[in-house]
Amino acid sequence: MKAEIITIGDELLIGQVIDTNSAWIGQELNKIGVSVMQITSISDDKNAILKTLDAAIERADIVLVTGGLGPTLDDITKTTLTEYFGGTLKMNSKALDKVEEFVKSRGVQMNALNRAQAMLPDNAKIILNKNGTASGMWFEKNKKPIISMPGVPFEMKQMMEEDIIPELKLRYVLPCIYHKTVLTSGIAESTMAELLFPLETKLPDNIKLAYLPSPGIVRLRFSATGVDYSVLQDSVASIVADVKLILGNAVWGFDNDTLEEKIGVLLVKFKSSIAIAESCTGGAISSKITQVAGASKYFKGGVIAYDNTVKTTVLGVNEATIAQNGAVSIPVVEEMAQGVLKLFNSDYAIATSGIAGPDGGTAEKPVGTVCIAIASKKGVVSNIYRFGNKRDTNISKSVLVSLYNLFLILNENLKQNN
Amino acid sequence: MKAEIITIGDELLIGQVIDTNSAWIGQELNKIGVSVMQITSISDDKNAILKTLDAAIERADIVLVTGGLGPTLDDITKTTLTEYFGGTLKMNSKALDKVEEFVKSRGVQMNALNRAQAMLPDNAKIILNKNGTASGMWFEKNKKPIISMPGVPFEMKQMMEEDIIPELKLRYVLPCIYHKTVLTSGIAESTMAELLFPLETKLPDNIKLAYLPSPGIVRLRFSATGVDYSVLQDSVASIVADVKLILGNAVWGFDNDTLEEKIGVLLVKFKSSIAIAESCTGGAISSKITQVAGASKYFKGGVIAYDNTVKTTVLGVNEATIAQNGAVSIPVVEEMAQGVLKLFNSDYAIATSGIAGPDGGTAEKPVGTVCIAIASKKGVVSNIYRFGNKRDTNISKSVLVSLYNLFLILNENLKQNN
Repeated sequence: MKAEIITIGDELLIGQVIDTNSAWIGQELNKIGVSVMQITSISDDKNAILKTLDAAIERADIVLVTGGLGPTLDDITKTTLTEYFGGTLKMNSKALDKVEEFVKSRGVQMNALNRAQAMLPDNAKIILNKNGTASGMWFEKNKKPIISMPGVPFEMKQMMEEDIIPELKLRYVLPCIYHKTVLTSGIAESTMAELLFPLETKLPDNIKLAYLPSPGIVRLRFSATGVDYSVLQDSVASIVADVKLILGNAVWGFDNDTLEEKIGVLLVKFKSSIAIAESCTGGAISSKITQVAGASKYFKGGVIAYDNTVKTTVLGVNEATIAQNGAVSIPVVEEMAQGVLKLFNSDYAIATSGIAGPDGGTAEKPVGTVCIAIASKKGVVSNIYRFGNKRDTNISKSVLVSLYNLFLILNENLKQNN
Repeated sequence: MKAEIITIGDELLIGQVIDTNSAWIGQELNKIGVSVMQITSISDDKNAILKTLDAAIERADIVLVTGGLGPTLDDITKTTLTEYFGGTLKMNSKALDKVEEFVKSRGVQMNALNRAQAMLPDNAKIILNKNGTASGMWFEKNKKPIISMPGVPFEMKQMMEEDIIPELKLRYVLPCIYHKTVLTSGIAESTMAELLFPLETKLPDNIKLAYLPSPGIVRLRFSATGVDYSVLQDSVASIVADVKLILGNAVWGFDNDTLEEKIGVLLVKFKSSIAIAESCTGGAISSKITQVAGASKYFKGGVIAYDNTVKTTVLGVNEATIAQNGAVSIPVVEEMAQGVLKLFNSDYAIATSGIAGPDGGTAEKPVGTVCIAIASKKGVVSNIYRFGNKRDTNISKSVLVSLYNLFLILNENLKQNN
């Protein structure tokens, strides 16, 4: 079963908004055996919408359209689609109730623009919106569904999850596609490709491997196609077991795992807590850790010691240590980690100190120099890194390496306890 | 001048990677008067690449292709394009030098996969890559440039900025497109549309207005087309002046402005400093503020007081205040703000305390209840908000509203000083 996605909105083409909807829709369709063959982004322009729709309906079995359903004058998707499929806009009383309910819950008065949102095509099945005023519309042509949804991500997601995916599952019996992604850190892509070359050349025809590098992480995605889901799972599992033997500790997770979630699971298992002292990362490590629901079970808190006086007065770093070694140094970052461990009475601590850039570099310690320490009641381990020239990448890499280093230590403890 | 973008990679269609390249390319092309008419994402599949290329070259004047140039077996863009344009792959010595230089700088040994990256088409102008091993390739067909670049964002960006954009500017004299975006907070989209309706209906034909809502921000984008850039700027400036009169304080910036940068500029102007005490935002406010280069001039640091004991022991919040009011309350968040102001000896402070969710809500204080305080040496002001049910959106809105509230106070001080 082949699908295409059409995303509508000038904001996508002039680059004001990044299209995150398509990636999410692609993931969800894959889970039910539907492959996305093409994603096309076009402007709020009637001709562009009509031509793209013609071509997509010709190629695909299912077409999903997002965007262009707002209450404002620039949004023309609803009228264009209604006309294309030969229908008429009529006031839909169920949709009107929903719009009124939504608008009132926001403490706002209904106005003509809101009311016009309930004028809907008489040739489509209407999908009510629980989170906004734009309804979804399910049209059909040559028995192919063409489904229009709002562009606001959480409105679109709710319709997909509650209405569209269940309906597609009921309608089609679908062949299997199985993806498994191995998450790695610590080995460069080209080195990894060399290590995995013998394995890659022996892969069966129905299993493909793709390398997806991003700063600090290389993801290895295996995609298997076939008729029996559990057979595919087993084949890929045995290949992944070989990958783990070849790459060792570099493999830290699978699929949508994140280091912050894996760390959380281990800390809960150990009934342990963590505190964080951040300089160059400026709160980004704590922010990642607290994105995980339930982080309050193990995350005590942190100190962002951006100014050197905070390092001494709040974290108790020795002034002489800073004077002798500089703020970006192994001795300082170790005292920061031990200081926050003590101040928050936690079992583990991370500390960072570095030069994120663009300024502040020296010949000896150029921009991108970052020290990272992990402390526990057993002691402290630390490393110095040279990342690169870009502030945002330096911060991202510092966060990732900090979490990866802590994960390795927690994982080592797990092995020793078992 | 019309362009199309083709992004190649299975990872985009199965939703593993979000296409951020197209938005960036769209912005850069707009600046030189090139409009992107369509963005098409397809898989690493020869037929899909050939068909999409045919259609794009037919419609557009310039075609930009990203992705599929990695060293691994799944990447077929280079061979497919070389064949499509009738060329042959040959070893390119300049590219080989660059690849060797890059690989060595990473402390990795050259291998056959790296070397193969220097096998390049003899019918394209080669664009060397300073940040990776995949070269760019500038093909021509019917005098139209078809340019292939790596998919890794910073490799692609460097080629666009240093080679491709300058070359396109030399080659074409381009008509003008001018965009101006007004950034607002504090007024809902539909209310704003009603307020601006009279202005919108009087807009001249060559100026379009689009509403772009996201959690906590509504962006108003004016797009003007014409022949004289300064005339367009003047027309839009006069409309924007009217928008500011209508919306008042809700307008806080323009185009790519961010609240964290605007706050930074004001703090530098006042020679003032800031410290932050975060509970539910878990470091996200500090992280935003330290994304700005030079934040060390005014950001002293912060305390992430996730655990209630940190609120009392480190920030000095009275235990009785928590016992009487609960941790998520106006009195507690005010004591947090005043506590961190004193501890870090800063001029301003922000504090947050709330229930991000999914757990922890009560009938009286449901998930989404957030208290935000801003303290200065003049005193403290605070508010309680009810955001929503989603953890990530609650955190994002708390960050945005905190920064907006601080911005309003700093801006008020600026007016009083002038």
